[in-house]
Amino acid sequence: MADEPIRVTVWGEGRHEKRDANVAALYPEGMHETIAAGIAEYAARPVVVRCTTLDSVDQGLPPSLLESTDVLTWWGHMAHDEVSDDLVDRVQAAVLAGMGLVVLHSGHWSKIFKRLMGTSCALRWRNGDDRELVWTVDPTHPVAAGVPSPIVIDRQEMYGEFFDIPAPDELVFVSSFSGGEVFRSGCAWRRGRGRVFYFSPGDQDYPVYHHPDVRRVIANAAVYVAGGAARDVTPIAYAPVGWYA
Amino acid sequence: MADEPIRVTVWGEGRHEKRDANVAALYPEGMHETIAAGIAEYAARPVVVRCTTLDSVDQGLPPSLLESTDVLTWWGHMAHDEVSDDLVDRVQAAVLAGMGLVVLHSGHWSKIFKRLMGTSCALRWRNGDDRELVWTVDPTHPVAAGVPSPIVIDRQEMYGEFFDIPAPDELVFVSSFSGGEVFRSGCAWRRGRGRVFYFSPGDQDYPVYHHPDVRRVIANAAVYVAGGAARDVTPIAYAPVGWYA
Amino acid sequence: MADEPIRVTVWGEGRHEKRDANVAALYPEGMHETIAAGIAEYAARPVVVRCTTLDSVDQGLPPSLLESTDVLTWWGHMAHDEVSDDLVDRVQAAVLAGMGLVVLHSGHWSKIFKRLMGTSCALRWRNGDDRELVWTVDPTHPVAAGVPSPIVIDRQEMYGEFFDIPAPDELVFVSSFSGGEVFRSGCAWRRGRGRVFYFSPGDQDYPVYHHPDVRRVIANAAVYVAGGAARDVTPIAYAPVGWYA
Amino acid sequence: MADEPIRVTVWGEGRHEKRDANVAALYPEGMHETIAAGIAEYAARPVVVRCTTLDSVDQGLPPSLLESTDVLTWWGHMAHDEVSDDLVDRVQAAVLAGMGLVVLHSGHWSKIFKRLMGTSCALRWRNGDDRELVWTVDPTHPVAAGVPSPIVIDRQEMYGEFFDIPAPDELVFVSSFSGGEVFRSGCAWRRGRGRVFYFSPGDQDYPVYHHPDVRRVIANAAVYVAGGAARDVTPIAYAPVGWYA
Repeated sequence: MADEPIRVTVWGEGRHEKRDANVAALYPEGMHETIAAGIAEYAARPVVVRCTTLDSVDQGLPPSLLESTDVLTWWGHMAHDEVSDDLVDRVQAAVLAGMGLVVLHSGHWSKIFKRLMGTSCALRWRNGDDRELVWTVDPTHPVAAGVPSPIVIDRQEMYGEFFDIPAPDELVFVSSFSGGEVFRSGCAWRRGRGRVFYFSPGDQDYPVYHHPDVRRVIANAAVYVAGGAARDVTPIAYAPVGWYA
Repeated sequence: MADEPIRVTVWGEGRHEKRDANVAALYPEGMHETIAAGIAEYAARPVVVRCTTLDSVDQGLPPSLLESTDVLTWWGHMAHDEVSDDLVDRVQAAVLAGMGLVVLHSGHWSKIFKRLMGTSCALRWRNGDDRELVWTVDPTHPVAAGVPSPIVIDRQEMYGEFFDIPAPDELVFVSSFSGGEVFRSGCAWRRGRGRVFYFSPGDQDYPVYHHPDVRRVIANAAVYVAGGAARDVTPIAYAPVGWYA
Repeated sequence: MADEPIRVTVWGEGRHEKRDANVAALYPEGMHETIAAGIAEYAARPVVVRCTTLDSVDQGLPPSLLESTDVLTWWGHMAHDEVSDDLVDRVQAAVLAGMGLVVLHSGHWSKIFKRLMGTSCALRWRNGDDRELVWTVDPTHPVAAGVPSPIVIDRQEMYGEFFDIPAPDELVFVSSFSGGEVFRSGCAWRRGRGRVFYFSPGDQDYPVYHHPDVRRVIANAAVYVAGGAARDVTPIAYAPVGWYA
Repeated sequence: MADEPIRVTVWGEGRHEKRDANVAALYPEGMHETIAAGIAEYAARPVVVRCTTLDSVDQGLPPSLLESTDVLTWWGHMAHDEVSDDLVDRVQAAVLAGMGLVVLHSGHWSKIFKRLMGTSCALRWRNGDDRELVWTVDPTHPVAAGVPSPIVIDRQEMYGEFFDIPAPDELVFVSSFSGGEVFRSGCAWRRGRGRVFYFSPGDQDYPVYHHPDVRRVIANAAVYVAGGAARDVTPIAYAPVGWYA
């Protein structure tokens, strides 16, 4: 099973690239294409990467695509509210059934992340050309493999605590910013049969998804959440009386 | 602040008592009244306990009551679907703002518990007169104070793994059943500023809420989730540029 | 790196087999050989498995062997006190530097496990022909891959709570016993750069290490703790003044 | 029980104050007296605070004192190696039996902390007049009650990741430093029946233990680890055959 390629789908909101010249300049083919190329470049296992966007059919995730996805990555920002509750229901069900999910940067505020966390997922922020340093606090974790500690990102939006998430099952990265803020920037949770990883570096206004270490972390995360879990659903199940008695 | 009484609201579905003669016989004043009396009897701090039910005004939780509640306990079973999404929204917001929540038994399948967990909260079950033994696996935890390990419950519904919840922040109790099943029967999580405790013993068809040890655990849990947290809301907050630089 | 075989060393105390006829009958070549064969049979990645025992040179773990070990499994029972503090120091250092460790059954009471846990590692027990059921509570965990829930072990020593260990980073299995006891039977922790997995099923008086599901779990655990972590040591490190400022 | 005062013993190494003029100037009565005064000033429950030092009888902790201690705080730096293994054994046993332990700053490198953690407890450091900001990442935690986020410490030694500790059961504070480093500066673990809290701010070369917020955190931590746990020991216990069967 480890030899079959992981089927990664990179979901992008795809709006800033159309509206904002500076974003289009940084990501001429769309942020999703840059993210996808990074995963293909750095994944430690074979992957097949597809891109899709909010403005495609079924908001980019028709059932057939979702069913053939082992790992979904999610970047959104200005159009979170446009994502339909039906799609959120379907993505949640897929995660609970074993699909991996990698949530990126402003995806912290997406409906699907809030759905899976149960919290507001609010945070402090500042778009002010901070330098971000991403420190590894769990050096055994596979998502941290092959990157320096710290990763140095010269220009980045600041995300700061308090970040209103459930305590991560695994805390992998903690960032600092020029302003002195800190942020739990790499966090893992399990939800049902699926794994969720949140990684905060990355923004439409900065070239962060071209950064080799950031690309490697996202690729590591995609492999990590793929896990190899079976895609079976856990129903409420009646147990026959006294079976083991 | 430790001297002010904790304002506990016991929310009961209140339907089985009206429909099922055996439930009415076990709980003539309603399950919620029995649960409330247990909290009042065993709480280690001063409490003021009020009861409310699904068939009351605003499904039992008008804004004024919710706002004056430090700890809410939740038991429901046959009418989960009738609870309005608006009420679920309001209870979730209260928890994230610092209200404690104790979810009891079949409340695992309530909308509010699923909302806060992000998972299906499914489990295996059997209504077959099992004996349940509730073992303490975290003897330092305040919810386990003053009860034996195991608590012996002579007749009870079986709830078994896999229980589809996020890994608890604190696992306090694990139960076994006559049939050989096990269940994580006492679990704590933090969500926003609030604490959530799930305790599984208790069912409408058995006199479990008259059991002194079960009553003590629920009272302990009510005190534990009260915590003393302030009820302030965490917004998305803009941070001025360079404040700490 | 995933293609290089994992170098597994199975350390066995090797005393019961010499002293007790019933143990020798169950494990004619020694328990360690049976454990080793199970790992070789079920490991999902290539492994090279070697056996060693307490009565060998350097108590079975000369520095050269330890240095060429990616994963160490440890079974001991009657001679824990004979293991030298020097060996415990060396094994601890190896774990902190990245070696994986799988501790089996009565190894809960070994010096090395107590050293890495910091607690007494005490538990309740009974040698009374219990049936053990091993339930999976984390179905996404790689150590649980490919085994049924529950694993049924017809005859086994009972280990029960309270088990005095730090709360596991990952709780994978919970067992019940005929007597009604429960036990956290599969637990993972990270220590330094290394991973530790404890799995309780297995005893010298029962044929548990011939059980296919038990063998698969131990093989899974060996692969899991191997992890792929680098074997570098983390020293106290002076940081130059203002390097990142 | 909540009304009985918590018996806190502040253990100080007490050497720098005798040797270094700058330390004596900052802490004329000894660092331990300043720490003790802060606990007495800010504790939310009644406390009785006593001080003791390495150069007192039985290295400051004769059995009678240890037995009458509910919470022990530990600060050491230059004389960790002088602490006898016998004392470490006795303190560990007390923690496992229910005594609370608060480890301060350079106490990360003490024998007792390493004993309870099982890891090297190494870290990165720099004595370079950094400003430390202590951010709260768990605002519901009682140790964070009543302090701002961040706590601003104008001059402090830098402690940075990777900090080689087991993943905390509860992560309460994360600090940043002028140099851009981050550090998990407030961490809780349970060990046996006892609780352990590590808080890093504080150093002999800076007036940190006079800082009101730091004093409040240490007082909060003392109350938190006191917990109310019983001081009974968990032995290896034989369970009679079939008691619950």
